[in-house]
Amino acid sequence: MSESSVVLPVLGALELNLLWLVFGSAIVALLYGGFLAWKVLREPQGSNAMIEVSKAIQEGSAAYLSRQFKVMAVFILLLTAGLYFMYRPIYSNNPVLPIGIAIAFLLGSIASAGAGFVGMSLAVRANTRVANAALTSFKKSLEIAFQAGTISGMFTVGFGLLGAVIIFMIFRQDAMKVLVGFGFGGCLVALFMRIGGGIFTKAADVGADLVGKVEKNIPEDDPRNAAVIADNVGDNVGDCAGMAADVFESYEVTLVAAIILGAGVLLEPSFKAAYGVLASAMALKLIIYPLLVRAVGVFASIIGTMVVRGKDGEQVGDAMKPIKFGFWVAALTSIAGFGLVNYLYLKDWRFFFATLTGIILAIVIEWITDYYTHTEHRPVKETSFSTKTGPATTILTGFGLAQESSVWAILAIGVTIFVSMSIFAGDLALAAYGVALAGLGLLTTTGFILAEDTFGPISDNANGIFEMSGANKGAGAKAQEIITKLDAVGNTTKALTKGFAIATAVIAAIALFKSFIAEGGLANIGIQLNMPEVFIGLLIGGAVPFLFSSFLIGAVSRSATKVVEEVRRQFREIPGLMEGKNKPEYFKCVDIVTASAQKELVGPAILAVCTPIAVGFGLGAAALGGYLAGAILVGQLLAVLLANSGAIWDNAKKVIEMGAYGGKGSDSHKAAVIGDTVGDPFKDTAGPALNPLIKVMNLVAILIVPMIIINLAPEVRYTVVGIAVGLIGLAFWLSKREKMMEEK
Amino acid sequence: MSESSVVLPVLGALELNLLWLVFGSAIVALLYGGFLAWKVLREPQGSNAMIEVSKAIQEGSAAYLSRQFKVMAVFILLLTAGLYFMYRPIYSNNPVLPIGIAIAFLLGSIASAGAGFVGMSLAVRANTRVANAALTSFKKSLEIAFQAGTISGMFTVGFGLLGAVIIFMIFRQDAMKVLVGFGFGGCLVALFMRIGGGIFTKAADVGADLVGKVEKNIPEDDPRNAAVIADNVGDNVGDCAGMAADVFESYEVTLVAAIILGAGVLLEPSFKAAYGVLASAMALKLIIYPLLVRAVGVFASIIGTMVVRGKDGEQVGDAMKPIKFGFWVAALTSIAGFGLVNYLYLKDWRFFFATLTGIILAIVIEWITDYYTHTEHRPVKETSFSTKTGPATTILTGFGLAQESSVWAILAIGVTIFVSMSIFAGDLALAAYGVALAGLGLLTTTGFILAEDTFGPISDNANGIFEMSGANKGAGAKAQEIITKLDAVGNTTKALTKGFAIATAVIAAIALFKSFIAEGGLANIGIQLNMPEVFIGLLIGGAVPFLFSSFLIGAVSRSATKVVEEVRRQFREIPGLMEGKNKPEYFKCVDIVTASAQKELVGPAILAVCTPIAVGFGLGAAALGGYLAGAILVGQLLAVLLANSGAIWDNAKKVIEMGAYGGKGSDSHKAAVIGDTVGDPFKDTAGPALNPLIKVMNLVAILIVPMIIINLAPEVRYTVVGIAVGLIGLAFWLSKREKMMEEK
Repeated sequence: MSESSVVLPVLGALELNLLWLVFGSAIVALLYGGFLAWKVLREPQGSNAMIEVSKAIQEGSAAYLSRQFKVMAVFILLLTAGLYFMYRPIYSNNPVLPIGIAIAFLLGSIASAGAGFVGMSLAVRANTRVANAALTSFKKSLEIAFQAGTISGMFTVGFGLLGAVIIFMIFRQDAMKVLVGFGFGGCLVALFMRIGGGIFTKAADVGADLVGKVEKNIPEDDPRNAAVIADNVGDNVGDCAGMAADVFESYEVTLVAAIILGAGVLLEPSFKAAYGVLASAMALKLIIYPLLVRAVGVFASIIGTMVVRGKDGEQVGDAMKPIKFGFWVAALTSIAGFGLVNYLYLKDWRFFFATLTGIILAIVIEWITDYYTHTEHRPVKETSFSTKTGPATTILTGFGLAQESSVWAILAIGVTIFVSMSIFAGDLALAAYGVALAGLGLLTTTGFILAEDTFGPISDNANGIFEMSGANKGAGAKAQEIITKLDAVGNTTKALTKGFAIATAVIAAIALFKSFIAEGGLANIGIQLNMPEVFIGLLIGGAVPFLFSSFLIGAVSRSATKVVEEVRRQFREIPGLMEGKNKPEYFKCVDIVTASAQKELVGPAILAVCTPIAVGFGLGAAALGGYLAGAILVGQLLAVLLANSGAIWDNAKKVIEMGAYGGKGSDSHKAAVIGDTVGDPFKDTAGPALNPLIKVMNLVAILIVPMIIINLAPEVRYTVVGIAVGLIGLAFWLSKREKMMEEK
Repeated sequence: MSESSVVLPVLGALELNLLWLVFGSAIVALLYGGFLAWKVLREPQGSNAMIEVSKAIQEGSAAYLSRQFKVMAVFILLLTAGLYFMYRPIYSNNPVLPIGIAIAFLLGSIASAGAGFVGMSLAVRANTRVANAALTSFKKSLEIAFQAGTISGMFTVGFGLLGAVIIFMIFRQDAMKVLVGFGFGGCLVALFMRIGGGIFTKAADVGADLVGKVEKNIPEDDPRNAAVIADNVGDNVGDCAGMAADVFESYEVTLVAAIILGAGVLLEPSFKAAYGVLASAMALKLIIYPLLVRAVGVFASIIGTMVVRGKDGEQVGDAMKPIKFGFWVAALTSIAGFGLVNYLYLKDWRFFFATLTGIILAIVIEWITDYYTHTEHRPVKETSFSTKTGPATTILTGFGLAQESSVWAILAIGVTIFVSMSIFAGDLALAAYGVALAGLGLLTTTGFILAEDTFGPISDNANGIFEMSGANKGAGAKAQEIITKLDAVGNTTKALTKGFAIATAVIAAIALFKSFIAEGGLANIGIQLNMPEVFIGLLIGGAVPFLFSSFLIGAVSRSATKVVEEVRRQFREIPGLMEGKNKPEYFKCVDIVTASAQKELVGPAILAVCTPIAVGFGLGAAALGGYLAGAILVGQLLAVLLANSGAIWDNAKKVIEMGAYGGKGSDSHKAAVIGDTVGDPFKDTAGPALNPLIKVMNLVAILIVPMIIINLAPEVRYTVVGIAVGLIGLAFWLSKREKMMEEK
């Protein structure tokens, strides 16, 4: 369909062998993940009380996921059929391709859900083992938590790479189109997991706090609070399953984009002129290189995670140090690996440097996030100081600083694009490929970064189990210190990986932009901002992240209100609950947030899928390009603002809890708690869900654009627009249906 | 310089007469303004105590403005010289033009400052007269307040139109370039007034509240609080002078854009083909038509303001009703006027309908703002309900709803662009002209809307004088009710006009986009989002409003801290202050915020002027186009979010103060006060300053783009970039120099 059909060069024996090597590295990732799972599960689970709490969390998460999967299955199956029927007339000369795209979509969604499921299943089993190990050894508990986190990373990387290699081997010439379908499946699942998980986790958290901390004056994670299990389940479904599915898609899409652009160089006359008879062989290398970079990443991540080791001694160690060390080992190993691949295979150092810019971006983004959100640096310190003049100044200070952090993050991305492109300044044909390589580089250490992320909910849950099982009462001060420190470091690693995840979404989207242009037949005229419909597309695209996050913030409020009512009811109706003589019905709360999250996710999901359809069919392919640009721009700024403001307020509260400005219970602390509560849905619901939003809209655009540019009859076109707008209206109605306030 | 030099057709006798007519209507506006000033100043000023308070406010505002003008003068004179020396080599064949542009810039800044100055001078004199009239008559006080507000509107419109006609008559062929200079002068002043005034007003307000309401538990506007006069001065410098200067520029720029695009149709082959020998005559009509639309607006606004009348009776009337009625009269009179101009002169109803879309946009924007921020509708009701669960849910609910309101506002703008363009669907040459006409239509009722806006600070101040002079103690319940109701209506009119002002900024910027493209030699290749440098430009452009508002939010915190210290000092050091035996030194506080606002405005102003220079010279003209698009998109979304969230929280507090959820002093009220304080710098500092930011950057881009596209030597180009980046760094350092927190 596209104006520019790339003819893939024939694979030689060397390339086939290299493909098998990549295949093998994907298998290695899965085997290593399996080995770690076996190793973690062998660890002792601790006391019966601990096991009981952990079991409740396991059951809650499993119940949530099975319900979530059922809702998703309906959407996924509908879209699988939709993709098939949409592509059948377009690829009438190649009947296998529509089937391939539809099946790849299905498999992509299964792989993404699978990576999330495996990661979460292990996380909810590791938590009690970490809590138990903390009773005796810092080293042991850190290592179990990190190894369990690594399982999630390994399965994500393994599934992602395996799917890509297999599709590439089967479809060869048409692999790119099929791979887009695979990526779309992955990211649609990510969207559901992020939205559903995000609403679940914060509705439970806010609901638990509003009754527990505020009304009843009992501490966090107190077993008398009916919503505590839901709160702990939420950490897993939001941070663990959601993040894995989210990053899975970026991992896939940057790979796809690099392969497409590698093959695309053959269409550029300047490339052919520069390489002459070697052009075809060089293009082949450019296609294989991204797969090799991914293989390097697998081994680098394994090595990086292996060196994360704690030390037992007089003092409890700093868990952040070995994790940072591991990240640097993974990053440097990757760089060495790229160098080797270049030296032996590509023999052109420009490609090495372009990939390097991505790794550097990963480091810079970590650095920016760390500076703005860590308790040691000025932004958090200023925010905690501003608690002295009350909650309003706390919120204003944190909000302003988080806006600033957005600016640096977007500049870092802009500079990376500029540099990765400028490396090929003499060779314009390769500029876009350079940007794709930066994306590849950024995601090289995915395996390690997901380990870091999953470490967060595991250590958080371990702390919860420690408190709820009563283990905190018998244990010594050292065990308490170990578990608190692990939990605090988990907060930091979670915040760091959020900044990383949004950067990958933006870079992945930009890397796919050229494919969108090729598929949309826009190569000659481009996407001209001076065309009014493109500008209107830009305005609408920028508005969607605002509407989307407004939906999610509202959804958390509505769901939290239900939790509040249920927890209050239990305190009222269960005799002896407050005195600890009776247990609350934890599962009622889990059920309520599960049901509520499923109901609330339909609206935002419709918005993500239908808005690009409405704009594309209503205003044309170029306007859809403007739409994507607007969505990427505003999505990035807003995602970082929401994620970092939440992290700043959270840590400003921690600074006070560590003793500053009067410590716990002071007026400053109250102001900080208010800031933290505002930040909860910002950083854990609306912010992270913006990544898959950007990516879903991007892939929907690429998938529908071939349909937009064929001359559809106006009545068909406007029927499509009408249905899409109608569904968006429905989404809006769904989100407004439940009133937050009682009727007067 | 531009690729497309338009040759202006020769003016016939009819056109010359019409120009004199427009000239005459500008004079009518000024005379009517003068008449109203004479009328208002004849009203009695009230008791000595009232006069004393009013005098203090007058002196404070005058002191502020004279300091502000001094700081601005330095910038303005530097830029006047800069413009001259930049344009001299470019227009070496026409030496008068660089002088004309430079002088027009100077005059534009003087006219803008003058409109603000006159409006404010009358406002600070009207306040005591309104307070005095309220003692006896609702009708009288409403009419004085509204007539005093109208003065600001008439002078803005009069200066704006007069400047445009005179420049047009003198420069004819080159008028467009000179008019851009005139508009730039106006909007640079607007930027200074908005930033400085915004920081001043909220630093005083927040500072006064933090000590008065929170620490000392004394009511708002209590004369014992040293910051109350500064607070009242702030309302005038921010809302009154700032708004007039701000709207002045949009008024000018939409006119300029329509004239440029009207002349530009002659470059379009399709236009020439369609009109044949009549093409030149038709183009002339398209140039004159915008000026006639402005003349219609003058008379429509005068008629609209004249019908705003109150009624005295048993019950105190609703002040909003006559104001709404007046707006409808002004809008319908305008529409009738457009119809007449079309019927007699243009004889093509498409132009009528394109202008009409602008009026409709004004109505829709007012409607959206009213729905989201008025106490009667669901958003404010939901937000006030959410105060029951504390400040965090209050802030989340208001924030989410304000995000939603941004989406509707941007969609309304998108639809207006689409419709105004589609009216000329058969005639592509006219599409851009259609968008410019929508802009003209939107600003037709400027005279009325500024009257509405200035009514806000006048009635607010009247309330302040009423309280501070002790008049409230002697007066009856009815006078109290009159003054309270006027104040509340003033809040609503202020909120409504803020929504209007940001819409005008966006439409004005879009209307100028085509000129930017022509001047930048981009007519053939366009601004292609698929070019990486354009995309990078877009990212940077979107980041600037975030950084800018982060600066301003920080500036308010820093300045408010100083006010807090001063008020505390006076309570500590002035004996008998708390008991009312001694007066505070009001002027110390005025001095502190004046100095602080001047210091803080340098950073954001540098950012606004230097960022487009850095991007334009660093990445080229196309990238600068992307930059503008990003700034417009994010600027609009953020401005509406900030303005409306602030208004929602403010009115949620009002709902509670009127008795809901426990009324004043309840926990709900405390939560609402926190929301309101967060909203203060949002809605009165950062939000409104984003309009002139967008416009200044837009005009800087148009002014520098001829320099960018000539082949500058790389060392010159990079020196310019280096200086611009250096200055931005300085701006950053300036904003960070003062630490909010004490050193450890």
